[in-house]
Amino acid sequence: MQPVMTIDEVHAFLETDFPQIHTDGRVFTVTAISAGRITMQLDPNERHLRPGGTVSGPSLFALADVAAYVAVLAHIGPVALAVTTNLNINFLRMPKPAPLNCTCRLLKLGKRLAVIDAAIYQENPGELVAHATATYSIPPK
Amino acid sequence: MQPVMTIDEVHAFLETDFPQIHTDGRVFTVTAISAGRITMQLDPNERHLRPGGTVSGPSLFALADVAAYVAVLAHIGPVALAVTTNLNINFLRMPKPAPLNCTCRLLKLGKRLAVIDAAIYQENPGELVAHATATYSIPPK
Amino acid sequence: MQPVMTIDEVHAFLETDFPQIHTDGRVFTVTAISAGRITMQLDPNERHLRPGGTVSGPSLFALADVAAYVAVLAHIGPVALAVTTNLNINFLRMPKPAPLNCTCRLLKLGKRLAVIDAAIYQENPGELVAHATATYSIPPK
Amino acid sequence: MQPVMTIDEVHAFLETDFPQIHTDGRVFTVTAISAGRITMQLDPNERHLRPGGTVSGPSLFALADVAAYVAVLAHIGPVALAVTTNLNINFLRMPKPAPLNCTCRLLKLGKRLAVIDAAIYQENPGELVAHATATYSIPPK
Repeated sequence: MQPVMTIDEVHAFLETDFPQIHTDGRVFTVTAISAGRITMQLDPNERHLRPGGTVSGPSLFALADVAAYVAVLAHIGPVALAVTTNLNINFLRMPKPAPLNCTCRLLKLGKRLAVIDAAIYQENPGELVAHATATYSIPPK
Repeated sequence: MQPVMTIDEVHAFLETDFPQIHTDGRVFTVTAISAGRITMQLDPNERHLRPGGTVSGPSLFALADVAAYVAVLAHIGPVALAVTTNLNINFLRMPKPAPLNCTCRLLKLGKRLAVIDAAIYQENPGELVAHATATYSIPPK
Repeated sequence: MQPVMTIDEVHAFLETDFPQIHTDGRVFTVTAISAGRITMQLDPNERHLRPGGTVSGPSLFALADVAAYVAVLAHIGPVALAVTTNLNINFLRMPKPAPLNCTCRLLKLGKRLAVIDAAIYQENPGELVAHATATYSIPPK
Repeated sequence: MQPVMTIDEVHAFLETDFPQIHTDGRVFTVTAISAGRITMQLDPNERHLRPGGTVSGPSLFALADVAAYVAVLAHIGPVALAVTTNLNINFLRMPKPAPLNCTCRLLKLGKRLAVIDAAIYQENPGELVAHATATYSIPPK
C-alpha cells in the first residue's frame, strides 16, 4: 500500500479542491505520509478552544475526519471524491490547548470502501486524547 | 423519564454555561422537550456549508453532540457536567443547505452513563440525513 | 421502501441458504415484516445463557446481526449476498433469561450500502436491552 | 500500565469464573500479556465456521469481546466484574478457517471506564480480518 502523492501535492490539492478547511485559518497541516499511513496536525486557535482550556469535541472530530480523508487521498490519488459514511470516536483524555497530531492508518483500502484507524495525541503518541475509526465510500471511477 | 427543565431554562443555561455554541451566531435552538426526548435545530450559515450546497460533516457531528448533551441536561438538570465518551455517526444522505433537526431519545439514563439515539433530518423525519448514537459520562454528584 | 418477501419466504430462504443459524436449535424466528422494518425473536437456550441468569453479549450481537441481514434480504429479495461491514452495539440493561425481540429499521437502502437500526428488548419496547447500528455492503448485481 | 496477572493466572481465573467460554471446547487461549497489551487466540471448530470456509461474524465479535475483557482483567486483577458497554467492529477481510489472533491494547484504563483497541488477524498482523473498539465499565470497588 504505497502512497501516490507527496505532502506538497496533498497540500496543493486541498488548497484548490477543499479550501473550506482553511476557513478558520491555516490550522490543518499534513506532517507525514508513508506506506499506508499519514499524520496531520491541528494547531488550534480561539475557535477550537473551550472554557477550562481544552479543545472542543467537534474540533477533534474534524481533525480525525479530514486526516482520514487525506489518508485515502494520498493512496488513491486525486481522482475521485471519497465521502465519510461512518465515524466512531472515543474521547479518552482532555486535550490541552496545544497542537494535536492525528496519525491515520489504512486498515483496508478496497475498491468501494476504505477503513481508517485515527489516533489523536499531543506530545506522547502512547497517550491518546481520542481514537476514531472511519469508513469512506470510494465512488466508481 | 420526565424532563426537569423547560426549553427556556435550557436556553438560559446554555447562554451562561456553554456560550461557545453561539460562536457562529445563534444557529442552535432547542425546539421541543418531552419525556425522554428533545429536538434541536441547526440553522446553517456560510460556515456550515460546503461547495455543492451541502452541510459539512463536522456540523452534523456538532449538532448530534450538542443535542445529545441537551437531552441529558434536560433530564438530570444543571447539576453536573456530562462529557461525551463515545459518538458513532452514520452519514446517510447529503443534506440540503437548509435547517436540520436532530431528535434525541434517551436509550438509557443511568447513574454513570447515558446513551442517546440522535436522528438528523430536514423536512421528512422518515428520511434521515444522519444517525448517531452517543454515550455521555455523568460525573458523581 | 416496501418489502418483497413474506415471513414464510424469508424462513424458507434461511432454511436452505443459511442453515447454520439453526445450529443451536430453532431459536431465531422472524415475527414481523412491514415497510422498512422487520422483527426477529431469539428464544435463548442453555448456550445463550450466562451465570446469574442473563443472555450473553455474543448472543445479542448475533441477534442484531442476523435481524439486520433479514431486514435487507426482505427488501431486496434473495438475489445477492449482503455482508456486514460495520456493527456498533451498546449494551444498555441486563436481559433476563427469556425471549428477546429485535426490531430493525432500514435507515438507508442504497445500491451499495444499507444502514440498519436494531433495537433489542424483552416485554417493553421502550426499555431496550441493547441497541445496534449495522452497515451491510450489497454486492453489484 | 503494567499487567498484574500472568497468562496462567488469567487462565485459572477464566476456568473458575468464566467457564462458559469453554462451552464449545477449549478454543480461546491467552498467548501473550505485556504492558497495556494482551493477545488471545481463537482456534475455530465446526461451530465457528460458515459455508464457503470462513469464520462467522459472531465468532469474531466473541473473540474481540473476550480478549478486551482479558486485557482489562490482566491489568486490574480479578477484583471486580467489568461489563461491555459498547463495541464497534469493522469486518475487513474474509478470514480463512484457521486460528485467529486478537491483539488488544488498552487505550485508556480509567477508574470507571476502559477503552480497548482490538485487532484481529491470521498470519499477518499487518492485514487485519477485523478491527474493534470496546468500552468496558468498571464497577466501583
